[in-house]
Amino acid sequence: DFDLALDEVKPAFGQHTDDFEKCIPNGIQLFSDEFNHTMGSCMSILDQLRGSTHTPLMSMLLHGDKGSGKTALSAHLAQGSDYPYVRRIASDRFVGFSEQAKISAIAKIFEDAYKSDLSCIVLDDIERLVDFVRVGPRFSTPVLQALMALLKKPPPKENSRLLVIGTSTDAQFLEEVELLHSFNVSMAIPVLSQPAHYKVVLESLPGFTPPAVQEICGGLAGQSIGIKTLLLVAEMAVQRENPVQFGVFKECLGQCGIAV
Amino acid sequence: DFDLALDEVKPAFGQHTDDFEKCIPNGIQLFSDEFNHTMGSCMSILDQLRGSTHTPLMSMLLHGDKGSGKTALSAHLAQGSDYPYVRRIASDRFVGFSEQAKISAIAKIFEDAYKSDLSCIVLDDIERLVDFVRVGPRFSTPVLQALMALLKKPPPKENSRLLVIGTSTDAQFLEEVELLHSFNVSMAIPVLSQPAHYKVVLESLPGFTPPAVQEICGGLAGQSIGIKTLLLVAEMAVQRENPVQFGVFKECLGQCGIAV
Amino acid sequence: DFDLALDEVKPAFGQHTDDFEKCIPNGIQLFSDEFNHTMGSCMSILDQLRGSTHTPLMSMLLHGDKGSGKTALSAHLAQGSDYPYVRRIASDRFVGFSEQAKISAIAKIFEDAYKSDLSCIVLDDIERLVDFVRVGPRFSTPVLQALMALLKKPPPKENSRLLVIGTSTDAQFLEEVELLHSFNVSMAIPVLSQPAHYKVVLESLPGFTPPAVQEICGGLAGQSIGIKTLLLVAEMAVQRENPVQFGVFKECLGQCGIAV
Amino acid sequence: DFDLALDEVKPAFGQHTDDFEKCIPNGIQLFSDEFNHTMGSCMSILDQLRGSTHTPLMSMLLHGDKGSGKTALSAHLAQGSDYPYVRRIASDRFVGFSEQAKISAIAKIFEDAYKSDLSCIVLDDIERLVDFVRVGPRFSTPVLQALMALLKKPPPKENSRLLVIGTSTDAQFLEEVELLHSFNVSMAIPVLSQPAHYKVVLESLPGFTPPAVQEICGGLAGQSIGIKTLLLVAEMAVQRENPVQFGVFKECLGQCGIAV
Amino acid sequence: DFDLALDEVKPAFGQHTDDFEKCIPNGIQLFSDEFNHTMGSCMSILDQLRGSTHTPLMSMLLHGDKGSGKTALSAHLAQGSDYPYVRRIASDRFVGFSEQAKISAIAKIFEDAYKSDLSCIVLDDIERLVDFVRVGPRFSTPVLQALMALLKKPPPKENSRLLVIGTSTDAQFLEEVELLHSFNVSMAIPVLSQPAHYKVVLESLPGFTPPAVQEICGGLAGQSIGIKTLLLVAEMAVQRENPVQFGVFKECLGQCGIAV
Amino acid sequence: DFDLALDEVKPAFGQHTDDFEKCIPNGIQLFSDEFNHTMGSCMSILDQLRGSTHTPLMSMLLHGDKGSGKTALSAHLAQGSDYPYVRRIASDRFVGFSEQAKISAIAKIFEDAYKSDLSCIVLDDIERLVDFVRVGPRFSTPVLQALMALLKKPPPKENSRLLVIGTSTDAQFLEEVELLHSFNVSMAIPVLSQPAHYKVVLESLPGFTPPAVQEICGGLAGQSIGIKTLLLVAEMAVQRENPVQFGVFKECLGQCGIAV
Ligand SMILES: Nc1ncnc2c1ncn2[C@@H]1O[C@H](COP(=O)(O)OP(=O)(O)OP(=O)(O)O)[C@@H](O)[C@H]1O
Ligand SMILES: Nc1ncnc2c1ncn2[C@@H]1O[C@H](COP(=O)(O)OP(=O)(O)OP(=O)(O)O)[C@@H](O)[C@H]1O
Ligand SMILES: Nc1ncnc2c1ncn2[C@@H]1O[C@H](COP(=O)(O)OP(=O)(O)OP(=O)(O)O)[C@@H](O)[C@H]1O
Ligand SMILES: Nc1ncnc2c1ncn2[C@@H]1O[C@H](COP(=O)(O)OP(=O)(O)OP(=O)(O)O)[C@@H](O)[C@H]1O
Ligand SMILES: Nc1ncnc2c1ncn2[C@@H]1O[C@H](COP(=O)(O)OP(=O)(O)OP(=O)(O)O)[C@@H](O)[C@H]1O
Ligand SMILES: Nc1ncnc2c1ncn2[C@@H]1O[C@H](COP(=O)(O)OP(=O)(O)OP(=O)(O)O)[C@@H](O)[C@H]1O
Ligand SMILES: [Mg+2]
Ligand SMILES: [Mg+2]
Ligand SMILES: [Mg+2]
Ligand SMILES: [Mg+2]
Ligand SMILES: [Mg+2]
Ligand SMILES: [Mg+2]
Repeated sequence: DFDLALDEVKPAFGQHTDDFEKCIPNGIQLFSDEFNHTMGSCMSILDQLRGSTHTPLMSMLLHGDKGSGKTALSAHLAQGSDYPYVRRIASDRFVGFSEQAKISAIAKIFEDAYKSDLSCIVLDDIERLVDFVRVGPRFSTPVLQALMALLKKPPPKENSRLLVIGTSTDAQFLEEVELLHSFNVSMAIPVLSQPAHYKVVLESLPGFTPPAVQEICGGLAGQSIGIKTLLLVAEMAVQRENPVQFGVFKECLGQCGIAV
Repeated sequence: DFDLALDEVKPAFGQHTDDFEKCIPNGIQLFSDEFNHTMGSCMSILDQLRGSTHTPLMSMLLHGDKGSGKTALSAHLAQGSDYPYVRRIASDRFVGFSEQAKISAIAKIFEDAYKSDLSCIVLDDIERLVDFVRVGPRFSTPVLQALMALLKKPPPKENSRLLVIGTSTDAQFLEEVELLHSFNVSMAIPVLSQPAHYKVVLESLPGFTPPAVQEICGGLAGQSIGIKTLLLVAEMAVQRENPVQFGVFKECLGQCGIAV
Repeated sequence: DFDLALDEVKPAFGQHTDDFEKCIPNGIQLFSDEFNHTMGSCMSILDQLRGSTHTPLMSMLLHGDKGSGKTALSAHLAQGSDYPYVRRIASDRFVGFSEQAKISAIAKIFEDAYKSDLSCIVLDDIERLVDFVRVGPRFSTPVLQALMALLKKPPPKENSRLLVIGTSTDAQFLEEVELLHSFNVSMAIPVLSQPAHYKVVLESLPGFTPPAVQEICGGLAGQSIGIKTLLLVAEMAVQRENPVQFGVFKECLGQCGIAV
Repeated sequence: DFDLALDEVKPAFGQHTDDFEKCIPNGIQLFSDEFNHTMGSCMSILDQLRGSTHTPLMSMLLHGDKGSGKTALSAHLAQGSDYPYVRRIASDRFVGFSEQAKISAIAKIFEDAYKSDLSCIVLDDIERLVDFVRVGPRFSTPVLQALMALLKKPPPKENSRLLVIGTSTDAQFLEEVELLHSFNVSMAIPVLSQPAHYKVVLESLPGFTPPAVQEICGGLAGQSIGIKTLLLVAEMAVQRENPVQFGVFKECLGQCGIAV
Repeated sequence: DFDLALDEVKPAFGQHTDDFEKCIPNGIQLFSDEFNHTMGSCMSILDQLRGSTHTPLMSMLLHGDKGSGKTALSAHLAQGSDYPYVRRIASDRFVGFSEQAKISAIAKIFEDAYKSDLSCIVLDDIERLVDFVRVGPRFSTPVLQALMALLKKPPPKENSRLLVIGTSTDAQFLEEVELLHSFNVSMAIPVLSQPAHYKVVLESLPGFTPPAVQEICGGLAGQSIGIKTLLLVAEMAVQRENPVQFGVFKECLGQCGIAV
Repeated sequence: DFDLALDEVKPAFGQHTDDFEKCIPNGIQLFSDEFNHTMGSCMSILDQLRGSTHTPLMSMLLHGDKGSGKTALSAHLAQGSDYPYVRRIASDRFVGFSEQAKISAIAKIFEDAYKSDLSCIVLDDIERLVDFVRVGPRFSTPVLQALMALLKKPPPKENSRLLVIGTSTDAQFLEEVELLHSFNVSMAIPVLSQPAHYKVVLESLPGFTPPAVQEICGGLAGQSIGIKTLLLVAEMAVQRENPVQFGVFKECLGQCGIAV
């Protein structure tokens, strides 16, 4: 049954593991040193808030290209945090919601977090949460203002701490609306850009023989591809031809919008 | 009785064959190798999702000129998919609907699809669905945002898979509002542009003698005409003169907005 | 009693002869070969749909200068069609209607048409129906989108056929909002532009002596005047002076916005 | 009691003499040949409709500078018409009305006119009726569209005739929104611009001696002043000094925004 | 209790002395000949309407820099008029009012004025009444249109006369929206700009010794300062140092936005 | 429980110490002479109103860079004022409020202040209160107009005095919308810009050894950093490494958006 009513959004405690698991269908591959370093920095922020008695509120932005793995990484961090209250806020929950209903639902999740000693809230794909369209530009000022206010409000309860993790594809837009600097910390998520990076990923997949991996990695030299896009193309190619050859792989890349 | 109420939109299972049949009044003619190849690629995506156990959500955009046969091709693909749940979402269902009612109706169809193991939803003429007008430009941001959210939401049910096929005349607009890259795959639908293409179509129609076909195909050299327009002009011409001569054919072309 | 309520718009069958008769107060004069040819083309479209078993939906746009006789010609065609269901949709029916009420009223007329085997609906003065103002530009996007959807929707009933005749003074606007090409066929309505054209009309009116007609036709050489404007000026002049002389005729022309 | 309700607008028949009388507090002075000629042309339109059996609807626009006497002249024409139904539509009736309420009130007056055999409706200060502001520009599209529709709608009753007289200070705006050509006839209202014109007016007023009139008329040479402004300045001056001298007259002119 | 309801606005007769007294906390100082002359002109308009039997409606605009004393002067004129009905309309009455509620409250005050034989209504700070912001620009079209209509509507009652006094800091905006010329008379309010002007004011204040006045007046040469600003700075300075020296006076000027 | 209702905003008297305390988590450090001087000027305004019998209303704007300590300083001033009624108005109270509800809540606080003899209201982060976004620009005109009206309205009660302290990061925006000059006094809040400034702060923190302080202060030469940012970076660094070295400190600065 399709229901837009507010009461669909029930208060809840504890971890929402399912929500986050669905965001990481292909796990987290450590495809480059740069990625590993970035993930390490993110984790140290998590540790910091966990141990701190002085910082009630921290916020961290993960920004990167389309398909660079922001959703999966944010879910991985939240899930691995072991914080007692973790939640994910994403636009697919709000199809058909009015601006007011959306703001209420978001604020409700923050209200619940304030009751926990240690919480982590993921704001996935902020452009979608604020209904951003580059043409105009258009975006929901009320939702934007609500996010700005919530990013500045420390939990009212004594000793309560909150970490907000945001993800975004368009850091420039966030800068323009002064949302970028509403986050305490910003992290750029790297894409795959060298043969060695592609090799790590393709070798782990069924249907890719060592010589094919070799040829494909060579053919991709100079390209920048997000981990999500790479995995999709690989799956399309394997469906058509097993083991995969470079020709089919290249055709699938093209149909996914990447000209080699 | 004319009724704008929401309950007109009833949940329904199984194939909606009638809906799709009306979209292909003149069948699908294989008028060029390029068209055949494009249709083949589309079909392989359908096969892929049918057989896959790893991909819960795929989306494919068919874009091409006005009258290039997008509606018919999308219907042909959906109807021929043999998926248990196939639906068509088009603007003529929504005359007089408010934005909210339209979004609810669209979301309802997706909700029903999530209940099926294998579904295909056609979003025909996306510019019309989002009330696009080039002047301004104007378009419905809420409907656009709803489509973007739905294009990213995998079916929540285990093992449920969904293919979304969109059609569009204005890929540039879709690019500008970042809807183009919300589709995993994009396919350009070819028009008729060579005498051989026209010949295939006209020979199959009553009222066109071989010499007339010869003359007309020569006269159309260098033109680009969509299959839908060509069939309309041919029918107009046959009504006026049977067998058709080039003069009447040319006059009808002009009245349909194509100057030869 | 002035009533904006929806129920004022009752479903109705059969011809609305009165509606159309009031649109042709001065009959249809065959003032030039070009006009005769255009009217002939329009009539052949009417014949075509009447006889056809393959075309469920046709649409034809009549566009021309202010006062060129579009309203009268569209009424003449509809009235002379002998189709069982003919209707006129014009802005004077909708004074004070909300956008929604207007769309409902328009959609109701189409719904009724779908029940008939053969119907003709006139959309008179499309700029007024969509509340167009060049400054801005402004227009009603919902009404425009409704017209676009209705112009593409074939009657759902088997063997039901519908002809939509639109009239417009501003084909450029229709082009800009992509409504022009939503019509299958476009016809330009000619104005009077040569002494011979004026002669046909003035000779038929009381109060114009042959020498006066001669002088006026000479004086109008090089002008372009719509049939409606010409008839209004002639009537004003006859009221002031009977028989009319060129001086008074010219003064009236000036007061009607045409400088000679 | 201040009441915005619709029922304040009661249907009414017969002449509204009071309404019109208040618009001509200082009578109509025949200050120049040009003015006399223009008023004569207006009156001949009134005669024409009174005698005609063929013209159900005529519309005439009076446009001129601020304070040129448009309101008084339109009232004078309507009052002197001896038509059985005459009405004035002006913005001061609509303070605080919503757009819809205003359109209903206007449409109601037209509806009542349609019931009479011969009617005259004055639309005074059209810019104010459509809430026009040059900055933007802004104006009420619904009211504008309603006026355009009403200006084209002939009285539905057999033998019923209607004359609409509009007044405007900004013919350019009316042109831009295509309202200017919605009137059949346009008349420019002249201002006072020569010593002889001023003399006619000032001589008729108490407090102006012949030598003072002589001096003032000389001092005003080359100026263009509307009749309303001239009368206001004269009254201000007489209040301050009786008989008036040029010095005081000039000072009052300056405080009324006219630098000599 | 904070109450936005309409009934808070009760009809009332007689003078509202309190309202006006609060607007003149520091009296009216005759600081320059130019100011005296301007105030004299304003008073002669008041006398004129008081004695007149021909002018039912007059309107006068007082415009000048921020802090030039417009509010106090308008209050002084209204209070000193001895008219039986005087009222002040200012934005601080309308915090939180909707546009409609504000228009109703304003119209109510005019309605009450129409019942009196002689009335004076002050529209203080017209930019604030119409919610003007230079950025955009933005302003309330409905309130603006209501003011324009009310400025043109003579009291309907026989022998009833009304004077409207408006104040404005931004005559250019009023010009742009054609509100400036809706006033019959315009008066520019002068600021203090010469040592002699400052001397008049400072000498009258406690805490300023003759030598200090001398020094300050010299230091202010070439400056333009509104009377309100000057009095505020003087009060700030006296609070900090008594008797005041030029150094402290200058520092306070700077903190009030005037760099010397 | 999350509740947007108006009654959540209860009238209240006395000091709201808690509200202000949370705004100064790290106290007020006297990091530079410039800062000390500015704070002194602010305090003298507080003294002035406390002692004055002539000034019923004063307003003071504190503007400075992001993180320069505006919120803490305004809280420190209000809390230290010993005024009987002090209140803080900040956007985090209004998440999900409609414009009307927000204006009512703000007006309520002013209404309560008017009942006290001596009050201080802090309007923290005015850009957020008026929902400002530089893109467009967009902002809430009704809230802006309400603030402008409230900043000009003296307490109606005899002998009641009110001080309004505003804070802003974007004085240019306030200038553009003419809110800047609605404040009587403006104060610029200084940032840390010299080694001596940083030294004062870092020396007071645990985990920073004298040599490290020395090195960091040298490395920061030429930078401008707000006190809030400096304290956050220091805390992040101490969490990672105790005692802190310059390398880690610099890395944390970079993740907080300051490139050294
Ligand atoms: N190192 C990695 N980081 C992130 N995702 C990874 C990594 N390795 C593998 N993956 C997989 O890659 C996919 C990343 O997709 P994800 O939806 O997170 O991308 P995204 O950047 O959010 O895309 P979009 O821009 O469309 O929102 C997931 O399937 C995830 O399991
Ligand atoms: N190869 C083909 N592909 C598509 N349509 C074909 C083909 N061969 C014949 N047809 C016929 O051509 C017509 C295509 O019309 P269709 O409505 O699909 O065009 P369209 O591109 O959707 O037009 P529009 O741009 O107006 O939406 C149908 O009547 C269909 O039966
Ligand atoms: N050949 C003709 N075509 C059209 N109208 C004619 C013709 N001959 C005479 N008429 C008369 O001319 C008038 C045409 O007026 P009509 O209202 O149709 O013009 P229009 O183009 O619709 O004007 P507008 O641009 O104002 O809508 C009618 O009175 C009609 O009877
Ligand atoms: N020949 C005349 N034409 C019009 N008005 C005249 C004439 N002679 C005297 N008057 C007087 O001049 C005044 C004209 O004022 P009126 O309100 O009609 O001007 P207006 O052009 O409508 O002004 P506005 O531009 O402000 O609407 C009236 O008092 C009228 O009695
Ligand atoms: N000659 C004068 N004219 C006006 N005000 C004077 C004069 N002499 C002294 N005052 C005092 O100066 C102050 C004028 O302030 P007022 O509020 O009228 O200025 P304003 O121009 O309305 O300011 P704002 O532009 O902020 O609205 C009042 O306190 C008034 O008593
Ligand atoms: N001299 C000082 N002035 C202000 N704050 C200080 C000072 N010394 C230490 N602090 C501390 O610095 C922090 C200032 O943060 P605050 O929130 O006031 O900054 P802000 O300018 O309001 O930031 P934002 O621009 O994000 O609103 C507080 O923790 C406060 O205790
Ligand atoms: Mg993502
Ligand atoms: Mg189509
Ligand atoms: Mg017409
Ligand atoms: Mg007028
Ligand atoms: Mg003022
Ligand atoms: Mg702050």
